[in-house]
Amino acid sequence: MKKILVINGPNINFLGIREKGIYGSQNYDALVDMINKKAEELGLDVEIFQSNHEGAIIDKIQECYGNKDGIVINPGAYTHYSYAIRDALASIESIPKIEVHISNVHTREEFRHVSVTAPVCTGQVVGLGLNGYLYAMQALCDMQ
Amino acid sequence: MKKILVINGPNINFLGIREKGIYGSQNYDALVDMINKKAEELGLDVEIFQSNHEGAIIDKIQECYGNKDGIVINPGAYTHYSYAIRDALASIESIPKIEVHISNVHTREEFRHVSVTAPVCTGQVVGLGLNGYLYAMQALCDMQ
Amino acid sequence: MKKILVINGPNINFLGIREKGIYGSQNYDALVDMINKKAEELGLDVEIFQSNHEGAIIDKIQECYGNKDGIVINPGAYTHYSYAIRDALASIESIPKIEVHISNVHTREEFRHVSVTAPVCTGQVVGLGLNGYLYAMQALCDMQ
Amino acid sequence: MKKILVINGPNINFLGIREKGIYGSQNYDALVDMINKKAEELGLDVEIFQSNHEGAIIDKIQECYGNKDGIVINPGAYTHYSYAIRDALASIESIPKIEVHISNVHTREEFRHVSVTAPVCTGQVVGLGLNGYLYAMQALCDMQ
Amino acid sequence: MKKILVINGPNINFLGIREKGIYGSQNYDALVDMINKKAEELGLDVEIFQSNHEGAIIDKIQECYGNKDGIVINPGAYTHYSYAIRDALASIESIPKIEVHISNVHTREEFRHVSVTAPVCTGQVVGLGLNGYLYAMQALCDMQ
Amino acid sequence: MKKILVINGPNINFLGIREKGIYGSQNYDALVDMINKKAEELGLDVEIFQSNHEGAIIDKIQECYGNKDGIVINPGAYTHYSYAIRDALASIESIPKIEVHISNVHTREEFRHVSVTAPVCTGQVVGLGLNGYLYAMQALCDMQ
Amino acid sequence: MKKILVINGPNINFLGIREKGIYGSQNYDALVDMINKKAEELGLDVEIFQSNHEGAIIDKIQECYGNKDGIVINPGAYTHYSYAIRDALASIESIPKIEVHISNVHTREEFRHVSVTAPVCTGQVVGLGLNGYLYAMQALCDMQ
Amino acid sequence: MKKILVINGPNINFLGIREKGIYGSQNYDALVDMINKKAEELGLDVEIFQSNHEGAIIDKIQECYGNKDGIVINPGAYTHYSYAIRDALASIESIPKIEVHISNVHTREEFRHVSVTAPVCTGQVVGLGLNGYLYAMQALCDMQ
Amino acid sequence: MKKILVINGPNINFLGIREKGIYGSQNYDALVDMINKKAEELGLDVEIFQSNHEGAIIDKIQECYGNKDGIVINPGAYTHYSYAIRDALASIESIPKIEVHISNVHTREEFRHVSVTAPVCTGQVVGLGLNGYLYAMQALCDMQ
Amino acid sequence: MKKILVINGPNINFLGIREKGIYGSQNYDALVDMINKKAEELGLDVEIFQSNHEGAIIDKIQECYGNKDGIVINPGAYTHYSYAIRDALASIESIPKIEVHISNVHTREEFRHVSVTAPVCTGQVVGLGLNGYLYAMQALCDMQ
Amino acid sequence: MKKILVINGPNINFLGIREKGIYGSQNYDALVDMINKKAEELGLDVEIFQSNHEGAIIDKIQECYGNKDGIVINPGAYTHYSYAIRDALASIESIPKIEVHISNVHTREEFRHVSVTAPVCTGQVVGLGLNGYLYAMQALCDMQ
Amino acid sequence: MKKILVINGPNINFLGIREKGIYGSQNYDALVDMINKKAEELGLDVEIFQSNHEGAIIDKIQECYGNKDGIVINPGAYTHYSYAIRDALASIESIPKIEVHISNVHTREEFRHVSVTAPVCTGQVVGLGLNGYLYAMQALCDMQ
Repeated sequence: MKKILVINGPNINFLGIREKGIYGSQNYDALVDMINKKAEELGLDVEIFQSNHEGAIIDKIQECYGNKDGIVINPGAYTHYSYAIRDALASIESIPKIEVHISNVHTREEFRHVSVTAPVCTGQVVGLGLNGYLYAMQALCDMQ
Repeated sequence: MKKILVINGPNINFLGIREKGIYGSQNYDALVDMINKKAEELGLDVEIFQSNHEGAIIDKIQECYGNKDGIVINPGAYTHYSYAIRDALASIESIPKIEVHISNVHTREEFRHVSVTAPVCTGQVVGLGLNGYLYAMQALCDMQ
Repeated sequence: MKKILVINGPNINFLGIREKGIYGSQNYDALVDMINKKAEELGLDVEIFQSNHEGAIIDKIQECYGNKDGIVINPGAYTHYSYAIRDALASIESIPKIEVHISNVHTREEFRHVSVTAPVCTGQVVGLGLNGYLYAMQALCDMQ
Repeated sequence: MKKILVINGPNINFLGIREKGIYGSQNYDALVDMINKKAEELGLDVEIFQSNHEGAIIDKIQECYGNKDGIVINPGAYTHYSYAIRDALASIESIPKIEVHISNVHTREEFRHVSVTAPVCTGQVVGLGLNGYLYAMQALCDMQ
Repeated sequence: MKKILVINGPNINFLGIREKGIYGSQNYDALVDMINKKAEELGLDVEIFQSNHEGAIIDKIQECYGNKDGIVINPGAYTHYSYAIRDALASIESIPKIEVHISNVHTREEFRHVSVTAPVCTGQVVGLGLNGYLYAMQALCDMQ
Repeated sequence: MKKILVINGPNINFLGIREKGIYGSQNYDALVDMINKKAEELGLDVEIFQSNHEGAIIDKIQECYGNKDGIVINPGAYTHYSYAIRDALASIESIPKIEVHISNVHTREEFRHVSVTAPVCTGQVVGLGLNGYLYAMQALCDMQ
Repeated sequence: MKKILVINGPNINFLGIREKGIYGSQNYDALVDMINKKAEELGLDVEIFQSNHEGAIIDKIQECYGNKDGIVINPGAYTHYSYAIRDALASIESIPKIEVHISNVHTREEFRHVSVTAPVCTGQVVGLGLNGYLYAMQALCDMQ
Repeated sequence: MKKILVINGPNINFLGIREKGIYGSQNYDALVDMINKKAEELGLDVEIFQSNHEGAIIDKIQECYGNKDGIVINPGAYTHYSYAIRDALASIESIPKIEVHISNVHTREEFRHVSVTAPVCTGQVVGLGLNGYLYAMQALCDMQ
Repeated sequence: MKKILVINGPNINFLGIREKGIYGSQNYDALVDMINKKAEELGLDVEIFQSNHEGAIIDKIQECYGNKDGIVINPGAYTHYSYAIRDALASIESIPKIEVHISNVHTREEFRHVSVTAPVCTGQVVGLGLNGYLYAMQALCDMQ
Repeated sequence: MKKILVINGPNINFLGIREKGIYGSQNYDALVDMINKKAEELGLDVEIFQSNHEGAIIDKIQECYGNKDGIVINPGAYTHYSYAIRDALASIESIPKIEVHISNVHTREEFRHVSVTAPVCTGQVVGLGLNGYLYAMQALCDMQ
Repeated sequence: MKKILVINGPNINFLGIREKGIYGSQNYDALVDMINKKAEELGLDVEIFQSNHEGAIIDKIQECYGNKDGIVINPGAYTHYSYAIRDALASIESIPKIEVHISNVHTREEFRHVSVTAPVCTGQVVGLGLNGYLYAMQALCDMQ
Repeated sequence: MKKILVINGPNINFLGIREKGIYGSQNYDALVDMINKKAEELGLDVEIFQSNHEGAIIDKIQECYGNKDGIVINPGAYTHYSYAIRDALASIESIPKIEVHISNVHTREEFRHVSVTAPVCTGQVVGLGLNGYLYAMQALCDMQ
């Protein structure tokens, strides 16, 4: 049974509160439910983690070393500047990592808001709503 | 039955020939087969189109107007500069469009290789190999 | 009788479909009618050409050499990057060329969307709606 | 009878003196005559104003509020940096404003010489010589 | 009794006319009344000056030398490029100067619209509406 | 009685120790006293919070949701890059937020040190020393 | 006998018409003759292709796969932005490719007109007139 | 007898008041005396003009047309952005113009503070104090 | 006996795990041993601290105030963007601080990866492997 | 008999030692031999010069004035910044000059490594190995 | 008697040969004569030095330490990049140094050709032809 | 016995003369003594070389090939632009090279003053005064 970790970065816990026009009106609990249901369906052992703290996210990523088979990560705003999270992701090279963004960040972000974490992830699912997490989980499943 | 169009831009037909280290050794026919099989599985009416011609791709996108329910597009190198394809995609606003890239473009592309088409698509699936097309098709299916 | 060519670039044929808030609700046929009526009024021999293909537009511009007395061109999205169309326009130096944009591109375009064709045209009519084509035709008429 | 104001910014009064290769040899009086004749022809009540003073141009634009039906403006060098003129033009939103440049500024201007006034004008007529003023007047006439 | 000057730059006199969504519907006279009432309350001798002319604003600033104890200035659009006003403010080093902006300029202004006057002022009050002038006056009062 | 939160970011607790030439010699306790005294005077229920941890500041901002009527925030160095704090502030849209900087950051900061938090705050008070907090509190009071 | 393809991009067919001061007065037929004569001299099987269509050039490059031993290409204006042609050239890695420019592009091109095709070609011959094609053919001959 | 005009831009009249560390402690009257004495010595008919108004400086430059044989100009802060003064200087091509800066602007100015007037002047004397005006006058004298 | 603090930022604890090609195969414990041994040799009282949390590193730096005689810091990825750590280092001006990087960051880092902490440190030791810490300790010893 | 000078800039004498993967394993003597043999074949009087000294290269270029009929120059690293060598080459306008680079500099050089000497040379031969010198010599021969 | 050194950088010895349209037709000997005559007139002990070698110019500047009272320097192309010459000039702080350019570099130079030496010189004389050297000598004379 | 070369670039010989506030008051002879004493202590055969000539430094670096076991280099101002020295250092790949800067260049240098030599050196010692040379020598000793 594959063990995967889903990491949600800062403010993702405010889903359904924050900018509903962009992120929809489903709240964080609904997301957690969707992920757990999908995990069951795919036969995955899933752990879900949310933190607003950059350091806590790094600690969590480091814990994956030797303990997890894949990561789904929505780094939230840290996407744009956390070279520290990027280094943590890069340090556990052998584990596949998929970056998820709920909304189409390319629509909303100014040109300088690049993703510093994208180059060290395996791939990205962007703009497909909460379902994006599920496609990422599916993709981790499909990898050998 | 939803009707979708899969568009492959320039040089995608050289899959399995071109830079295998990046794109894998499966060729274009294998991709076509995967897409057709998945369409059957999802109950989608799929049309697959490949061209190296920017204008031909625009013509094809315009044909979707009133005729298709969704687009999966891998614009290849046109991703980086074809404002004309971008305008074509934008002109058919009501149709969902998902951009797919086989490899993780964020790893390979220089900073100035942005995607000009991304902001007018619904979302993106990046770096998940040929499977990326399948997740995009799934996502079109899941949309109301 | 002066012979002029009106060239419409990619997606202009989607007038009335595409972003009506910006381009108005009149469709491409209405534009063709307006141009033909104006040509009659001004005593001009007008040919109207639309294509989504950069190469086809270049071919058409080259045909003007020795055959036309003036060009009205709305290069659409090619305005922003087609150095090839720019070179084609520059190659027929003696023929006056007026660039037309239906909407005020300066309002909508990001800073990096410059016009690469503008420097090799005689002038520009911008933001005056479909009438812009008519003023451009008038201007070609008024030139010696 | 529509009341319009034609504003000429700094150094336009030096027409026929300044860089004749670019601006032609007709002087400012000739321009005034052309505009007056055209106004008569179009049935417009025209006022012509020239000043080298940024503040005086702003004062004049503000006077239009409630008193004019359209503005033709050649801001001269202020085009490139006068955010104050831009704000004045923007403040009288309901009045159409057309920016005119005698020569093709895109040919001559360095890349950083953008027009800061263009985004708040209705449109632009560029590079069509002194006639550009006349086409702009025509366009104001043609608007409802 | 402290003597202060309140300077309002270009287009501030169009308060209540210009972009009400941003600047509110109170007009310039209302602002003048608020400032006078506050001056009385704080025991300040206040002079209020408005001009669209960069040079007139500089002349006025120079008059402060030896005659005023503080300046509240809303340079309007000159904020973004008037190095001449900046030099004038800098030249009267010993007099405290507070820059006021009615709306939150950081929300509306493009990245290149920096304030060239900010570095030579004592401080800034931004985005707090017409009240911003009053807090600035209070601040001048509170300084030794 | 309005409930407000005053947030002080990293190193603000080193007031009176750090770069006295810029920040003055009053220490952090003196600031706390000033704020409390002012709150009493204005009839505000004030809570003061300081942390060097970006995540802790985000947690605190999130707590305001449904619990506070206004925020005064000096994000310290996080002003320049914390898109995560920015998102947190943006997520609680209905609560007014005023950014305070003790010194005139425009004097000291290099051009690239922009404020990423400013666009999502209501306004800013800059360069008016410790009193800046008091004017911000006053402003929160004056809002309906 | 080595088989080589000479590709001429947009507007090269207008040699002798377009900007003679830069490209000389010999026309395209003269170039074809020179190339054919040189091929005979060097014992090369040469095919010459010209198109204004980006897509057609890509199709042609793809045809070389398994069929040609070398390419001489003058991509014309596509040099500056056709990442699609670049990808096509890159996809046939084992075939040597030499980029030719008739005039010294470094003299005429603005700084941003870089060559996007140059990095995937073997080398370049620039500014040596029509003879440049001949030296490139010679170089293909000299390679093992 | 050569007739020359010495133009001093904004804030130069505050010599001896403004930033003495940079501009020295001699006041504007001292500068006027030095210039008049030198004019007498060189046999020049000199007129000295100072204004804080950009428009007034342009008016004055235009007056030189047909009336003066040379201009010495210290545009003050307008050096950095007044394309309008630049155009005025350029419009009177045949008259030599020397730009003077009292202090070494290259030491003090940030990289973006270029001189927009320098390219249309004959030359510059920079950083040589008030004497700079005298060397510029000498140079006008020495020209045929 | 001098008291020094050695601070290791995010992911340094993954030495020997993370990118061994760059950082070598010795693990974090080996580094701790080397530092302790060197401290003994130099007669230094050394404390070693590692954290992935930006805020925790700032707290630790603040603790040095009045308690330590020198700092050796490897800020890891925070080097590139933590203005908050920079401010903390700057706030304890009198204590010497040496920045250490194990690998030659100039080889690996993109041009925009500058060190924001470098300007407030006394100096840097870069690219000399784990020994770099020892040379930094030696340097702190050698300072008066 | 045409007299030509071949100039090799810094580090070219380390051919066969330096980065063999890029420059091949033939050493500098082999290059000298190839050039001499080719000169004989083409009936050219050739002089070969190598120096690591920018000034010495300039001196040598100046000596060509009146003494040589053509220059082949590989400026090595000076290509990227020696405006002094550029000026020297420009000063002897009537002599054709061909810049040679052994490897394809467009592959290896970062975007900012432009060639400052290219615009003042007649043309360039790039990426064709040591043979590049021979094609350049041939080209000098072929010029009238 | 003041001792001054006149330094001429690379290619200045080609005066009268190089780009006569810009530098005039007088040759280097004429310049030397002018300088010597002026020195006699002003009672200066002058030494004139020309070199194409950056290092030789630095050696010469260092010799001035303790031996000269002033420097006139035309660094030629080294103006744009020789931080080494700049440091040499900066190292002899107490000696006044005037930079001379024969032509108006602001007219000819691209935006990136700044003067790196200007900030460490006392001032500049630009665009006043060979006479510029004489005004610089005069200025050194006039300094106390 | 390891043989090392210490190279000092331009103006380092002016230690104790040049900007003492930055570089200290010890002169170049003192540095030479320190290095020699340390060499003796470490059992190194040291040669010390100083030159203001870029070419001479390159010649010296090339001499190391086959003759030295390590280089300590302070390239002075050449650090910022000498791609030629960089290439020379890169050409002798197998020899370790340590770049030394006496002062903390990150404090003083503008953002564009990067080190072009740093990426081809093994490492750097920065800001640790004259002692920096000694730590670099120690590091060369410690390498296998």
